[in-house]
Amino acid sequence: MKPIHKIGVGVVGASGFTGIELIKILINHPIFEITYVATSEGGIELDDLHPALKNIFTCKVQKADSAEIISRCELVFLALPHQASMGFAKSLLDSDIKVVDLSADYRLELETYEKYYCLHEDKEHLKDAVYGLPELYREEIKKSSLVANPGCYPTATILGLIPFVEYIDENFPIFIDAKSGVSGAGKKCSASTHFVGINENIFAYKVLNHRHEPEIAEKLRLKSDKEFDINFVPHLIPATRGELIDSYMLVKEDIDPVAVLKEFYKDEPFVRIFDTPVDIKNCSGTNFCDIYAQLKGRKLYVNSSVDNILRGSSSQAVANANLMCGLDEALALPFVAYVP
Amino acid sequence: MKPIHKIGVGVVGASGFTGIELIKILINHPIFEITYVATSEGGIELDDLHPALKNIFTCKVQKADSAEIISRCELVFLALPHQASMGFAKSLLDSDIKVVDLSADYRLELETYEKYYCLHEDKEHLKDAVYGLPELYREEIKKSSLVANPGCYPTATILGLIPFVEYIDENFPIFIDAKSGVSGAGKKCSASTHFVGINENIFAYKVLNHRHEPEIAEKLRLKSDKEFDINFVPHLIPATRGELIDSYMLVKEDIDPVAVLKEFYKDEPFVRIFDTPVDIKNCSGTNFCDIYAQLKGRKLYVNSSVDNILRGSSSQAVANANLMCGLDEALALPFVAYVP
Amino acid sequence: MKPIHKIGVGVVGASGFTGIELIKILINHPIFEITYVATSEGGIELDDLHPALKNIFTCKVQKADSAEIISRCELVFLALPHQASMGFAKSLLDSDIKVVDLSADYRLELETYEKYYCLHEDKEHLKDAVYGLPELYREEIKKSSLVANPGCYPTATILGLIPFVEYIDENFPIFIDAKSGVSGAGKKCSASTHFVGINENIFAYKVLNHRHEPEIAEKLRLKSDKEFDINFVPHLIPATRGELIDSYMLVKEDIDPVAVLKEFYKDEPFVRIFDTPVDIKNCSGTNFCDIYAQLKGRKLYVNSSVDNILRGSSSQAVANANLMCGLDEALALPFVAYVP
Amino acid sequence: MKPIHKIGVGVVGASGFTGIELIKILINHPIFEITYVATSEGGIELDDLHPALKNIFTCKVQKADSAEIISRCELVFLALPHQASMGFAKSLLDSDIKVVDLSADYRLELETYEKYYCLHEDKEHLKDAVYGLPELYREEIKKSSLVANPGCYPTATILGLIPFVEYIDENFPIFIDAKSGVSGAGKKCSASTHFVGINENIFAYKVLNHRHEPEIAEKLRLKSDKEFDINFVPHLIPATRGELIDSYMLVKEDIDPVAVLKEFYKDEPFVRIFDTPVDIKNCSGTNFCDIYAQLKGRKLYVNSSVDNILRGSSSQAVANANLMCGLDEALALPFVAYVP
Repeated sequence: MKPIHKIGVGVVGASGFTGIELIKILINHPIFEITYVATSEGGIELDDLHPALKNIFTCKVQKADSAEIISRCELVFLALPHQASMGFAKSLLDSDIKVVDLSADYRLELETYEKYYCLHEDKEHLKDAVYGLPELYREEIKKSSLVANPGCYPTATILGLIPFVEYIDENFPIFIDAKSGVSGAGKKCSASTHFVGINENIFAYKVLNHRHEPEIAEKLRLKSDKEFDINFVPHLIPATRGELIDSYMLVKEDIDPVAVLKEFYKDEPFVRIFDTPVDIKNCSGTNFCDIYAQLKGRKLYVNSSVDNILRGSSSQAVANANLMCGLDEALALPFVAYVP
Repeated sequence: MKPIHKIGVGVVGASGFTGIELIKILINHPIFEITYVATSEGGIELDDLHPALKNIFTCKVQKADSAEIISRCELVFLALPHQASMGFAKSLLDSDIKVVDLSADYRLELETYEKYYCLHEDKEHLKDAVYGLPELYREEIKKSSLVANPGCYPTATILGLIPFVEYIDENFPIFIDAKSGVSGAGKKCSASTHFVGINENIFAYKVLNHRHEPEIAEKLRLKSDKEFDINFVPHLIPATRGELIDSYMLVKEDIDPVAVLKEFYKDEPFVRIFDTPVDIKNCSGTNFCDIYAQLKGRKLYVNSSVDNILRGSSSQAVANANLMCGLDEALALPFVAYVP
Repeated sequence: MKPIHKIGVGVVGASGFTGIELIKILINHPIFEITYVATSEGGIELDDLHPALKNIFTCKVQKADSAEIISRCELVFLALPHQASMGFAKSLLDSDIKVVDLSADYRLELETYEKYYCLHEDKEHLKDAVYGLPELYREEIKKSSLVANPGCYPTATILGLIPFVEYIDENFPIFIDAKSGVSGAGKKCSASTHFVGINENIFAYKVLNHRHEPEIAEKLRLKSDKEFDINFVPHLIPATRGELIDSYMLVKEDIDPVAVLKEFYKDEPFVRIFDTPVDIKNCSGTNFCDIYAQLKGRKLYVNSSVDNILRGSSSQAVANANLMCGLDEALALPFVAYVP
Repeated sequence: MKPIHKIGVGVVGASGFTGIELIKILINHPIFEITYVATSEGGIELDDLHPALKNIFTCKVQKADSAEIISRCELVFLALPHQASMGFAKSLLDSDIKVVDLSADYRLELETYEKYYCLHEDKEHLKDAVYGLPELYREEIKKSSLVANPGCYPTATILGLIPFVEYIDENFPIFIDAKSGVSGAGKKCSASTHFVGINENIFAYKVLNHRHEPEIAEKLRLKSDKEFDINFVPHLIPATRGELIDSYMLVKEDIDPVAVLKEFYKDEPFVRIFDTPVDIKNCSGTNFCDIYAQLKGRKLYVNSSVDNILRGSSSQAVANANLMCGLDEALALPFVAYVP
């Protein structure tokens, strides 16, 4: 029997919600081996940082350092805030380390990025980055050294809309009403993420002004050569994880939307088409994106859901890493939901 | 000092969520006096049915009976399922008892009602019924003996949209994405209302097919003489009470939507206009409807919230009863929210 | 008709959960009039600090200042952290302002206080302070200028245990297993109060080491002249408000515990005795303490609940203020629960 | 390479919470193969019954039938109510089918069973049944054809107490205050499991009268030859899954309780000893039992937690099945928690 070649991988930004999710997947991975774990501060044991890992997996958490990453890893996951990410990615890429970047730094075209985020400090690699939505860019991801992992809202939204781009009436706006569990707001505490602030509550935030709006618009345009008027309103809901997207638009002709979805995704392992509205529990804990759609006259309703910190972040990142390393895309990805 | 004349009122349907809310308001009411409480089964003490009332208020709960109601009450709240309600209302009205009906039985024009519900069995009184949204029909309510209390979704939706009817482009659909706490689904148990079914979950139901959709459309048409294309998608969220409405539409001209709202509601005691998105907690426990709106190009976003079992049902019912009896509309209505 | 003399009251520490609860009660109070509201920072409108108050009540929030309080108030509620509180109380009392202190600063005997908190800086007034549990010290409260409002856990625990002090076997420990909603942990954000940290979770904290343990022990001793071995384990539960106490002990003789409770509290307006276990919802939003008890052999189980930020803090504070000002104890106190 | 011999297993009672958990584990099992799935009604596809399984695993759900089970399975999991279970088990065992029974039917000695449940209808097999707590009966389980899977509360309680049996002073009662997520109450709807009934709530039920009390007492007695006075008070908490046990007792000598735990469980793969209080999230989704303990004088506090439908039921059942079939106990068992 041929010995298995293990691939050393690093997780930079291990303290956040996406960091622990990455580690949870990687410790079950048959080929990837965690050889480096870092946070901005370091100096702690991993199972002290995340007690759920006790007796399962631990290691010394480092203070993030490029040279260390380069010496220990073939591929690294950057689970960092935007701007911090490109600082690390640049030197890693120059040393031929493969990078899956979970931040926004390499997701957008330069102009879009600088309009909505900040000046880009790694334009050189930006032009080679691939948008890590396997259903859209699988072949490109396989050949890439730098994959920009999509935002959680864009993942669920784009997967819901892309099958309909040829039918949608682009003269009319697309309204997207999104609902996210609190883990989407990150680990940082605030009045909104305090239990007392969001329990028994729901509210919209960054109305028509969220940075995932241009990300959705750009990706739809690039794939369809059409300009869609995306209007995006996200909400925080009193749940830990999960994300539900309701999209409203007009189509130019009569279609059977569920049939369109089933045909479009017939060979996709991680998209499921339902005949009834989806919820967030049935895909919670998994890499699935679940989709339903309904037509009333010319009005199209698309209803999609993902686990925001898995398909919307960490498990999709591992899918991308699998593809980048020539492995089966599904390797180690979670598919059994957190139900009941 | 002139003695206060107390008005005897009855609550029929006291076991449900709206029933207990009615009683909670009425026991603090300076003029209304609860003289009759009934459920479909009767035979229980009220504080056994609702232990929260222990040491505060109790009485024998009767099996609902028209003759009894007539002998004991001047006004009655019918918190019954549709169809059951009109059975009672008919005989009560014939005996000059004032009726506030919390069901759908007298909310709609005959044709709309029979299309979405069932055959109407009290056409005679239906034509005299007034739709109990005080901001729209205050003067009519004052003179009426039969007020049809609006549905919870229509209350929050119509109050959000009505200030904009002259601006909305009726050639394009209005999309309404609604989110309701679980109390909106009633006390009956089901897989959806089981804690395990809705906790850590959210889902759409009755997509583009909820009976509040024609109610919203009819009332907007009656008040504006325009036909709007209403598309309504309700969701259940993991919260007990509260309802958030997000409406999306196009307008024909440039407006300052918050200014429009402030002007329209400047004299209304139970509508509050916010400069930022509303949530459901700040009006939870009260009769307020909170509204915010935002414009982006010609796209109008309206964001309104109510407590679904108070402004969306029981406190609005008492507001109507107050008006019907010549009292101050605000008498005994709750205005201090269930915060924090 | 004789004009009503209004009493000017102040709320110092208005930003926290107990601060908003105080204000919610006081705006409905027929005699107390809010003449001063302060936080540590000031410089904000009250309805910006607490948007739920919009259109109901607002005023300028001040930066807390003793001279201002003295010039504007007859009585003041100090909703401040311990140690900060005694700093203010001293000068107010010297100027004959009545003080209800919601902190721990005047709750304990000097020795107990300094052992569990810090050096006491106002020993002079400490000796005159009355422990503000009306069921135990009503007459003393009436005559006092300084009432120390009890801790939330001691309130529910002591009210459950005090009727049994003559029966309890003090040779055996009393074990108290307490469960509190997250508002009990205050407004400050932490990993424990972050929604993601406590949702779908429960855990004990400060095991056998919480500062309410000596408070319970001291008060039981002072009232009974017996030394009880109090062992207190509090838990945080995924709920906003409410507190449930389960106490376990041995008794020296056979008793009917519910009968003991009913007899002991037969004239008390804000204690309710149940024949079945209590929950936290039926007293949520009110000043009630609900109690149940059960005996099995010589083992006594006592089960009590309060709303932690009302009976456990703010509404009890207003009850004390009412008594201190010669008013009806129940004036303006909430008694209708946040159900369903 | 030697072909793997797959073992056909059946799940009877697949509609409940423990049924879906069994299936979720078994579909990842390398040796067990699901060859039979039944409910009391049958006639449905498994992924219609549990939509989370869509695109992962499905089969025809049968109406439970002994002959069918015998023809298709080598081992069967009975996830049925007590009494229903023994009806099936009898004939299966007579046909040499291995049985893991998740009900109470084979957990107790005859006398205890008939006192707390009902007449036993399969006394013959009862005497051969092994109590399926691997930490206590691993060797017996390996040789058994009939394993009685422990109750959820006894699992977490016994694992917490058993290391201390030689130290506990049996002249004093042991008080056990337990808290369970709502899934522990089963799929059946009731006022208690309705979202509105348990959200923002907590309450004790079956106080000192739950049928897990004698189960705990009997197992502790059988393992220690001592009679402990077990007093058990369970609570329902607003969480879907998880169970926290707080046990209070006296010990006869001074001990280091965490050291005792660490020594006792040093070779156990599915018990973790913590140096701080445990919560329910860190073991949620896993087969772990997490334990902490603390001593104050002679008073011992033991704090243990499990996932009530995994370690408290389905994953423990698979552990038992693994042992009964000569496999590694840990095969396919979940160990990565549902965090964050």
